[in-house]
Amino acid sequence: MKPVRAPEAQESRDERKLRTRSQLTQAALKLTGQGRGFTSLSLREITREAGVVPAAFYRHFRDLDELGLALVESGGVTLRRLLREIRREQIPPKAMLEDSVTLYLRYVLAHRLEFAFIAGERSGGSPVIRNAIRREAAHFAAELAQDVAGLGTLPEIKIETLHMISGLIVGTLLNAAADILDLPEAQPLRTQELKRNFILELKVIFLGAAHWRDAP
Amino acid sequence: MKPVRAPEAQESRDERKLRTRSQLTQAALKLTGQGRGFTSLSLREITREAGVVPAAFYRHFRDLDELGLALVESGGVTLRRLLREIRREQIPPKAMLEDSVTLYLRYVLAHRLEFAFIAGERSGGSPVIRNAIRREAAHFAAELAQDVAGLGTLPEIKIETLHMISGLIVGTLLNAAADILDLPEAQPLRTQELKRNFILELKVIFLGAAHWRDAP
Repeated sequence: MKPVRAPEAQESRDERKLRTRSQLTQAALKLTGQGRGFTSLSLREITREAGVVPAAFYRHFRDLDELGLALVESGGVTLRRLLREIRREQIPPKAMLEDSVTLYLRYVLAHRLEFAFIAGERSGGSPVIRNAIRREAAHFAAELAQDVAGLGTLPEIKIETLHMISGLIVGTLLNAAADILDLPEAQPLRTQELKRNFILELKVIFLGAAHWRDAP
Repeated sequence: MKPVRAPEAQESRDERKLRTRSQLTQAALKLTGQGRGFTSLSLREITREAGVVPAAFYRHFRDLDELGLALVESGGVTLRRLLREIRREQIPPKAMLEDSVTLYLRYVLAHRLEFAFIAGERSGGSPVIRNAIRREAAHFAAELAQDVAGLGTLPEIKIETLHMISGLIVGTLLNAAADILDLPEAQPLRTQELKRNFILELKVIFLGAAHWRDAP
């Protein structure tokens, strides 16, 4: 007699494929989240952690670099989704800085493994992955520049300059992410201090931007 | 017959000890400079690279963390020596930003392995080392704040605020270090672009600082 399969187990081939792929990326994220640099991971470790046979890896990724690039890509999506969430909140301009920082802190902690990967590998061992993270950060900065332009508070600055300023902000955000991830639990005072300092840093940048005059 | 030793080989016990210690730290720097995260290094690899027997390691360091902390410490000294070099150049205030950035680029490339270690491990796998790098960065920021205060161009800003602004600058410097180290050789245009962007970022920060008013 054929065993009866519960309806939720009736995965299509495509679903199963997607699930294995996600098990592999999650396994790699989990291992890097334990402090292992991505370049120190072996294919065998990742498949063991994912609970799949080593050969299954190659049905999804050509090599470890390709898996790393997939993680960078999904990290980039996570970053840009933050901007969507900030837009959706419809924060009044006056509260924009503080509320965005509050949202960012919560967001980093809610996506701990992805931010740990981006923050760690952006100066990690693989040049291929470092460059991919640079591209995602530039992509994020370009979107941020558009959002800042949309606010209309810096009408006299060229979009090229807004890109440069956004790049500075993104670098500061990613530095803060590493600090946020290292915050000791159950020490809310440290969190408050970090948040306050982070808001002040961004204020300096926006104050500089507000007084910026582009060369004609 | 006793072999005759050349005078340069007549090392004292202390000199030999110092030399072995330096071989061990240089070996670890070299391995991390090849893209290996510090936490992925084994004691045996380091001693092999250094050309000493594994047991010799323990005459210098209790464990790998202690070696890592020694690298952080010497990286911190290298960072602060940069400030001394900038002071020694007696750059006129008008040229301060551009000339300091020129000096910084040259300095990072001249201390490639040390900066690669600091930039890589500041969000690397070891919390002990990450925190030590944070302390060195804070130490460097405090000295930078004193230097900026000494310039007298921001007389109305509290030293506490100067510390915060210096922290922002140090974060930006370390982000730039990672980019400088990844500059493709023989592409001077990329170097010029990076330098120009880096100067503009610092200008935004100093412009913000110049317009900063502390809450009374």
